[in-house]
Amino acid sequence: MISEISASRCFGGWQKRFRHASRVLDCDMVFGLFLPPNASADDPVPALYWLSGLTCTDENFAQKAGAQRLAAELGMAIVIPDTSPRGPGVPGDPDGAWDFGLGAGFYLNATQEPWARHYRMYDYVVSELPALVEANLPVSAERAVAGHSMGGHGALVCALRNPGRYRSVSAFSPIVDPMAVPWGEKAFSRYLGPDRESWRQWDTCALLADAAERLPLLVDVGSADPFLDTQLKPEALSRAAAAAGHPLDLRLRDGYDHSYFFVASFMDDHLRHHARALGLLTR
Amino acid sequence: MISEISASRCFGGWQKRFRHASRVLDCDMVFGLFLPPNASADDPVPALYWLSGLTCTDENFAQKAGAQRLAAELGMAIVIPDTSPRGPGVPGDPDGAWDFGLGAGFYLNATQEPWARHYRMYDYVVSELPALVEANLPVSAERAVAGHSMGGHGALVCALRNPGRYRSVSAFSPIVDPMAVPWGEKAFSRYLGPDRESWRQWDTCALLADAAERLPLLVDVGSADPFLDTQLKPEALSRAAAAAGHPLDLRLRDGYDHSYFFVASFMDDHLRHHARALGLLTR
Repeated sequence: MISEISASRCFGGWQKRFRHASRVLDCDMVFGLFLPPNASADDPVPALYWLSGLTCTDENFAQKAGAQRLAAELGMAIVIPDTSPRGPGVPGDPDGAWDFGLGAGFYLNATQEPWARHYRMYDYVVSELPALVEANLPVSAERAVAGHSMGGHGALVCALRNPGRYRSVSAFSPIVDPMAVPWGEKAFSRYLGPDRESWRQWDTCALLADAAERLPLLVDVGSADPFLDTQLKPEALSRAAAAAGHPLDLRLRDGYDHSYFFVASFMDDHLRHHARALGLLTR
Repeated sequence: MISEISASRCFGGWQKRFRHASRVLDCDMVFGLFLPPNASADDPVPALYWLSGLTCTDENFAQKAGAQRLAAELGMAIVIPDTSPRGPGVPGDPDGAWDFGLGAGFYLNATQEPWARHYRMYDYVVSELPALVEANLPVSAERAVAGHSMGGHGALVCALRNPGRYRSVSAFSPIVDPMAVPWGEKAFSRYLGPDRESWRQWDTCALLADAAERLPLLVDVGSADPFLDTQLKPEALSRAAAAAGHPLDLRLRDGYDHSYFFVASFMDDHLRHHARALGLLTR
């Protein structure tokens, strides 16, 4: 059902990669997994689901975020899905662009052809992958979700649409209002078609108005992020959260950009946030 | 003289890249630099010179080793040279292999054509680059040196050949006896020619016999490293150090491999080793 394709010891635990056939995405998929030293079949550990940004695979976060040191100490697994369906027969951007198609699944379920057959990353990361991981690996059903950029959008949307499914949520540099920015408009118009009303269910700012659960949002954004004003618009998130009375801890980090150097710098803060919610840390 | 080509805030400091014309290598070179938050022209900070392994550029360590968090706290800069000369006119492996030529300079001064003109990485990392860095950036002349695999070989050779130049030295998975293993024999026979006597000055085990300074060697190697028995041979280092009465702290790490997941796992140990020698940490 799943096959291990690599395993490296890392901070006393394991950084691994697995391949499996995804029914939801109708293709083979690879995902990454960090297992802390204390994970065992008898004692499965809570997991953070990390959703990566445009162009990433399952490997970028594992190699660049520096999360394993503290995750090992806290006893937290990290599950790292790919960012789109892959493989022969999976269509990419017709123009070969990097902001749509392969590496750019936007964590939604596409409704338009030729995307609808494979591009169902929402169902994959919310349902199919956790079920697979929890059935086959020493990982419990206590879940947190976080991500970067397109993956920050994904994390916020997954949490807001699924009350009770995640203990905590956080994001770095998220695309919070994809309906209103170029990356989102390009992706949504192709994956979802022209009816903008159907886009609202995949837009954090729109979802906040009707959120059934008041899960606090932890969000870090760099003030020197080159995408800040055109694609990220954190002020839209502030306004939407305030209007909805939704708890938001938005941190504008002076001088930081959009890179994994930024993500790594504040990763420990986010891991501790999730560890507290998962009961791994008492303060 | 040097131009900054990128700068990202990182753990309160900066991760940067610079380009400059290297006189020694007769080509343009790029190097990486981490500057901790406390570095300033009035208060330059000590630096660790990190020498990377086969196939790396200046970017791998900066992205994968997770060293910046503790280096920021300790107040230590990290200078990260490329692993070979680069650019138009610099010859690579005639067969396109990854273990010789581009990305594989072996931190020596070549004597044979067509390599001798550009392949002088030893002079570059020991002399030209530190002089450039110390003259133009807030980095002092208090130096430590470390590296991984081919770069571990480089770090040990640079330290052993230059008494007093480095306060401390360490290596992950180093090639300690290149004269006697396939990677080294291939590189040395081409860069240095058939006279094996001339190879001894670039071989850690050979240099230990005549070391003028008893700088302790800190070395970590993974027991599951796929290159352990064929290319690394840590037991040769143990024998040579014992025969020379040279202090060696060799740690065989159970189950770890050759990857940056291994390097990252023990990076803090190495940074603290260097910080103590550089006077940045008192115990």
